[in-house]
Amino acid sequence: MKLRLAMIGFGNVGQAFARLLISKREWLRETYGLEVEVLAISTRTRGSLMSKKAIDLHRVLGMLEIGEIFRDSMPEYVKLSPLEIIEGCDANLMVELTTLNIDSGQPAIEHIRKALRRGMHIVTANKGPIAYAYDELSLLARSRGLQFRFEGTVMDGTPVFNLVKRTLPGCEIESVQGLLNSTSNFILTEMSRGISFEEALDKAIRVGVAEADPSLDIDGWDAAAKITALANVLMGARSTPKEVERTGIRGISPESLRKAAASGMKYKLVARAEKANGEVKMCVRPELLKPEDLFWSVDGRSSAITLKTDLMGEISVVEHDPSIMQTAYAIYSDMLLIAESVHGS
Amino acid sequence: MKLRLAMIGFGNVGQAFARLLISKREWLRETYGLEVEVLAISTRTRGSLMSKKAIDLHRVLGMLEIGEIFRDSMPEYVKLSPLEIIEGCDANLMVELTTLNIDSGQPAIEHIRKALRRGMHIVTANKGPIAYAYDELSLLARSRGLQFRFEGTVMDGTPVFNLVKRTLPGCEIESVQGLLNSTSNFILTEMSRGISFEEALDKAIRVGVAEADPSLDIDGWDAAAKITALANVLMGARSTPKEVERTGIRGISPESLRKAAASGMKYKLVARAEKANGEVKMCVRPELLKPEDLFWSVDGRSSAITLKTDLMGEISVVEHDPSIMQTAYAIYSDMLLIAESVHGS
Repeated sequence: MKLRLAMIGFGNVGQAFARLLISKREWLRETYGLEVEVLAISTRTRGSLMSKKAIDLHRVLGMLEIGEIFRDSMPEYVKLSPLEIIEGCDANLMVELTTLNIDSGQPAIEHIRKALRRGMHIVTANKGPIAYAYDELSLLARSRGLQFRFEGTVMDGTPVFNLVKRTLPGCEIESVQGLLNSTSNFILTEMSRGISFEEALDKAIRVGVAEADPSLDIDGWDAAAKITALANVLMGARSTPKEVERTGIRGISPESLRKAAASGMKYKLVARAEKANGEVKMCVRPELLKPEDLFWSVDGRSSAITLKTDLMGEISVVEHDPSIMQTAYAIYSDMLLIAESVHGS
Repeated sequence: MKLRLAMIGFGNVGQAFARLLISKREWLRETYGLEVEVLAISTRTRGSLMSKKAIDLHRVLGMLEIGEIFRDSMPEYVKLSPLEIIEGCDANLMVELTTLNIDSGQPAIEHIRKALRRGMHIVTANKGPIAYAYDELSLLARSRGLQFRFEGTVMDGTPVFNLVKRTLPGCEIESVQGLLNSTSNFILTEMSRGISFEEALDKAIRVGVAEADPSLDIDGWDAAAKITALANVLMGARSTPKEVERTGIRGISPESLRKAAASGMKYKLVARAEKANGEVKMCVRPELLKPEDLFWSVDGRSSAITLKTDLMGEISVVEHDPSIMQTAYAIYSDMLLIAESVHGS
């Protein structure tokens, strides 16, 4: 079987995924009988490519690594918008990796709509569409017999959505709480070692933990988008990030971190969603945790989630100190689950 | 669709599962289009039942609750061994819940063999067959197009086997470490509060945490069987619990627990499996943990596992303070996954 990919958005995650594809090409062929070709790549600032034949990923990655942009001289070069590429491309799987728009989830929602209408399966790591249009898009996908997968939107490739859907059948999720924003956790961990907020933020940007716009992390918007995605998918909420009661980490002084540390406690940015009277209430805020809390030891870039269920009690999942590879794996694993389901295995 | 169950072993877990079946009967019919009937119940000390029609679970549970045994006067009453019941019964799913035999995994292995040969799917919470005969039984199941499921053998219904198989496609497991034995963890937690080993063990038996034979817990055999099951299924080992380097918790004095507590540390019984030179090495032993270790806060009946993978880095799963319901859910969720796969959804 053959998967033909259109990659809309090709930043760090897209490139890491492309490297993973190259290194797994043989393995995919032998183990899954799966051939994966990339037929289109749409970037924000480097131009776009589209082709009837597989694009040479080696060459593309090499160009991007040395800072080159795609040029007229390349046979695949096109001057087309993402929507025009989705419209014109012969792909059967669209990988949506554009950056988060926290106000509306656009234009990613439009990309996914169009790709579904053109008969493509969807894999995305973009939280916007799940936080703003999950119901509509999942319904549209189902009505066309297409897969819509988004494991990478929360905790990278750590199974959260797939965990509930594929391993907890018949369970209802009553509440979710999590440390969902790596940057905030990283900054709070660094500050507890004695450096200032600004120094910690600088370090987060330098090592590549922070989102493109770090205010999305620091003011709790990223965590709000993630808890909304979780509430929409796992708890049947129909909410947007704007309905999350939200406090970020700007207000936490080195002083209060020192005081907490002196009594063995830590501040963590905790996101919560809880069912109450048929509604799902969500909040994001710094909380003071004791060593007895599971989340206390979850430091740095690590993240964690606890699900309270009706039949399986409480279970937690922790992702330890991930790199960009774990987000690339999210795309890769969703792609494999699509291959399995289409193949019927 | 209809699942017709033969329940071989009907102790606490089997009875909790039967209660869950009763409470979910309507829901299963409406949501899954699934009808579940129990056609046979084989107990160790209360006699056995077998029938062409669904056995009245209400009545059976009521009898067992007031200490009655099955009698000649019941139309379903049979004087047959488990193997004779599997041979004679019209079930399409055998639920194996006999107690662990740590020396050989028998007679559970024989029960599963026979049931597979008779065309039944298998769900079990018995570690023995997975620790002693996983390769043979899974091969036999596959060759007959039957499902062989055993999520409940490790950490109750917490997804561990299903997590890897169903949500981490393409990942190789490089190592596993876990707090896998509730009784040991419970005893160590109680002892750290100042009571003696004997008092803590008594309490574990009283509240129903301990296995039928608590020496299996205390001497590390239960954890050894579980880490073997994990190594066999997830890491391709072909080992038995006898190959696990094993130290239990008998040797830990209240004195050493006090000393550990004074410096903020705790003893936990840690099971490990690790790949080295193409082999899987396994051990079970008490380890001294700091608060920075994720497992430090996993107290009482709770359990936890950390998987190191090639593509997804390290992830952990924690089960918080489970009851018998979580083991019943293991059987229930495996049954639902069988229903889904047979139905092709």
